[in-house]
Amino acid sequence: MKRDLDELMKERGIDALVISGTPRTSRDLLYFTGPVTISRGRLIKKPGEQPILVASSMEREEAAKSGLKIMTEQDFGLLEITRSAANLLEAGVKAFLRICEVLDVRGAVSFYGTGDIPYSHALLSAIEREGAVKVHVEAFDSILSEARMTKDNEEIDRIDSVSRRAQEVMGAVRDFLSSCSEVGGRIADPEGREVTIGRVREMIRVETEARGMVLEDPVIFSQGRDSAIPHSCGDDPAVLVPGKTIVFDYCPQETGPGYFCDITRTWCLGHVPDDVMEIYKQVLDIQLKLVDMLKVGGLCSSYDQVTNEYFDRHGHATPLKGTAKTDGYVHSLGHGIGLDVHERPRLSTFSKTEERLAPGHVFTVEPGLYYPQREIGVRIEDDIAIREDGTIVNLTALSKDILVPLR
Amino acid sequence: MKRDLDELMKERGIDALVISGTPRTSRDLLYFTGPVTISRGRLIKKPGEQPILVASSMEREEAAKSGLKIMTEQDFGLLEITRSAANLLEAGVKAFLRICEVLDVRGAVSFYGTGDIPYSHALLSAIEREGAVKVHVEAFDSILSEARMTKDNEEIDRIDSVSRRAQEVMGAVRDFLSSCSEVGGRIADPEGREVTIGRVREMIRVETEARGMVLEDPVIFSQGRDSAIPHSCGDDPAVLVPGKTIVFDYCPQETGPGYFCDITRTWCLGHVPDDVMEIYKQVLDIQLKLVDMLKVGGLCSSYDQVTNEYFDRHGHATPLKGTAKTDGYVHSLGHGIGLDVHERPRLSTFSKTEERLAPGHVFTVEPGLYYPQREIGVRIEDDIAIREDGTIVNLTALSKDILVPLR
Repeated sequence: MKRDLDELMKERGIDALVISGTPRTSRDLLYFTGPVTISRGRLIKKPGEQPILVASSMEREEAAKSGLKIMTEQDFGLLEITRSAANLLEAGVKAFLRICEVLDVRGAVSFYGTGDIPYSHALLSAIEREGAVKVHVEAFDSILSEARMTKDNEEIDRIDSVSRRAQEVMGAVRDFLSSCSEVGGRIADPEGREVTIGRVREMIRVETEARGMVLEDPVIFSQGRDSAIPHSCGDDPAVLVPGKTIVFDYCPQETGPGYFCDITRTWCLGHVPDDVMEIYKQVLDIQLKLVDMLKVGGLCSSYDQVTNEYFDRHGHATPLKGTAKTDGYVHSLGHGIGLDVHERPRLSTFSKTEERLAPGHVFTVEPGLYYPQREIGVRIEDDIAIREDGTIVNLTALSKDILVPLR
Repeated sequence: MKRDLDELMKERGIDALVISGTPRTSRDLLYFTGPVTISRGRLIKKPGEQPILVASSMEREEAAKSGLKIMTEQDFGLLEITRSAANLLEAGVKAFLRICEVLDVRGAVSFYGTGDIPYSHALLSAIEREGAVKVHVEAFDSILSEARMTKDNEEIDRIDSVSRRAQEVMGAVRDFLSSCSEVGGRIADPEGREVTIGRVREMIRVETEARGMVLEDPVIFSQGRDSAIPHSCGDDPAVLVPGKTIVFDYCPQETGPGYFCDITRTWCLGHVPDDVMEIYKQVLDIQLKLVDMLKVGGLCSSYDQVTNEYFDRHGHATPLKGTAKTDGYVHSLGHGIGLDVHERPRLSTFSKTEERLAPGHVFTVEPGLYYPQREIGVRIEDDIAIREDGTIVNLTALSKDILVPLR
C-alpha cells in the first residue's frame, strides 16, 4: 500500500523516487496521479514527504486534478534548459539535475515508469556518469510493485465493483446465447440470423462501455481450436456452433484508466461432448479445491505446484514436468490484478520469489487445459481478494456451468 | 519509409534492430506488426532480411496476423532459460543472447520500443557488460523515427481517411450547436435542456466510435479560461455560454490502434466579441499564410520562426523572445502525425535538427494565442501531407469560421 512506501524506501536505502511517463501507459505514475490527462510527468517523492508532480505548464490544470502538489516545468526553468542544450538527451540530464537541485534531491535515486527504451538507458547512463546522485536500479520486484501488490480496502472495493459489472456483462452474453437456437448445425438468434463471434464481441464492447469500463485489449472469445490457444482472441467472422468449447476471458478496466478485473468462463452451446466434459470436470475440480486451499501465509508458488501435480496425476502434460508445449496445462495458475492486468503476486511454480499470500493481495486463480488438435480448451478463472483484516473473498460469483442451453 | 531502413542501418553502422514491447504501447513495434494483440513481442531485423517477430507460444496465432515471420519463445527454449535463471533480469539477458545465437545476430545491435524504465536500463547495461554484441543506443532521432517520419502514399491515405471522418464528427458537433439557442445567457438544445461540455464530449465519443476511430486521450473541448490553457480538456459540468472562445482540439486514431489525425478549431457561439475577433483574425491570417508558404526543402524550424516574428510584431509574447509563459504564443507551430500523435518532423524554432520538409511528411500547422486572464484562447490546426510525388495537400477542408450561429 502507498503508506508502506516510506518504510520500503528506508529498508532499501532509497533517498528519492522519480517516476516518469504518462499516467495512461505508466501504471506506476497512474498509481499516484489517478487518470489525469497529461502527456508527460515526473513525480518526485522523498521519504516522509508528499510527492510532487512536475508537469508541463500547458497541462497544469489537468495535472492539478490529481490532487497532488504540482510544480510546472517553467518553475524549474526547463524551457530555457531545453533550448540551450545540444540535444534532447543533454536536455533530459540537465532538466533532471535542475529538479534535484531545486528540490534538494540527493543520495540514492531510484527511477520508475515506462518510457522509450534507448532514451531511458541513455538518460540513466548519463546521470550515472554525471555523478551528482547515485542511480539506484530496481530491475524487478521494485518497491512500487511491492506497494501496489497490497491493496487497501478502498482499492479492493473498486476491483470488486469492476468485477460485479464484468459479471453482469458475462451474464448478459450468456442470456443472449441461451435465447438462440441451433439451425443446421449453427447458432442463430431468435430472428434466425447466424451469430458470429464478431457480433458477440461487439455486444461485449457495448455492454462494457455502458457500465463505465473499457477494454485495453480485445476480449478473448474464442471457439474450438482457437479456444485451445490461451491468448487467441477468436475469429470474428466465425459462426458459433453447438458443442465446441468457447473460452470467454474478459478483463475490463475502470474507464479512466483504473483498476482491472480478470474473469474466464468456458461454455459449450446446446450440449457438452463427453471428452470435453471430462476435461471440464477436472479443471473445475482443481479450481474449486484451490480456492478452498488459499490462506494468508500460503506460499504463492505452492498453489501452482498443486495444480501441476493434479494435472500430472490425471495424465496431462505440465510445465513442471517440462512436457507442456501446446497441449495440457501450458501456463501458470494466476497473477495479481490491479492497475495492471498482470502484476504481483505471481502464482507460479517458476517464480523466483518466496511470495506468500497476504492481506491486500488481489489475484486470479485460473487453471486450464488445452488440446488444439482436439479443438478443446477449458479455463476457469476467478478473482480473489484478501481484505485488510485477512478475510479471503472470491469476488466472482458467476456460474461456472459449462453448458449454455439453447432454445 | 520502411524501405529506407536497410540503407539507414548501413549508414549508421547498425547490424541488427531489436524492438520490444506490445504493439499497443510501443509504436515502433506497431509500425511493423500492425494492431495484433500480443502481450509482449521482440522483433529482430537484420539489413537486407525480413524481420522476425518472436512471440509467446500462447499468442502465436495472434502474432501471425501481423503477416510477419513468427518464431515462438519455445522455438528458442526461452521457457527453460527463464526457469533456470536466478531472476527476471538474468532471464532477460540469457533470452536475448539465445536469440542472438540462433538468429546469428552479432555486431552493433540497436534497441527500440517502450518498456519499464529501470528494467530497460538494467537489461541494456547487463548486455553491454556481457559483451557478446555491441549495444548501439539511439537516444533520439532514431532510424525508426526517421523511417516513420516519411509516409508512403498508403499511409497518407489512411491518415486522410481518419482526417475525413474526424471532420465529419467536428461538422456534426458544429451542426448540433447551431441547432441550439441562447436561453438566459446559457446554451440550450432544441428541447430547452442546457448543453454541458460533458454532453458534447459524449456526443464526440459516440460519433468517433461510430466511424471506426478511438480517442487515446480525452478530447479537448474547453471554454473561456480553460480554452486559454492549451492542454486543458475542459470542464464537463460547465454549461456552454455565448461569446466565449471554445477550443476543440481533436485527435482520433484508427481503431486498432493505428494512424492519428489532429485538428483544432476555435468557435464562439452566437456572437464573437471584438477582442476575440481581433485575436482570431491574427491567428487565421498567419495560419493561412503558413500553409501557403510550405514547400519541399523548407527548413521546418523556419515556419515557427515566421510565426514567432508575426506574433511578436502584433505585440504578443512569444517563446523566441523568451517572454511567453502563459500569455501569448506559448507553444511551437506543429509536429508530425502518424502512429504517434506527436512525432517528427518538428516545426519548432527550438528543434536541434536541420529537418527540412520532404515527400512523405505529414504534420500539423497550428498557431495559437492564449490569454487566460482575459478568458481567450484561439488555435487553428490543419493537417498537411506531402505525397510521394512532392504534392503538398491540406487534408483539412473543414470551415475555419469562428462564429457558430445559434437559432
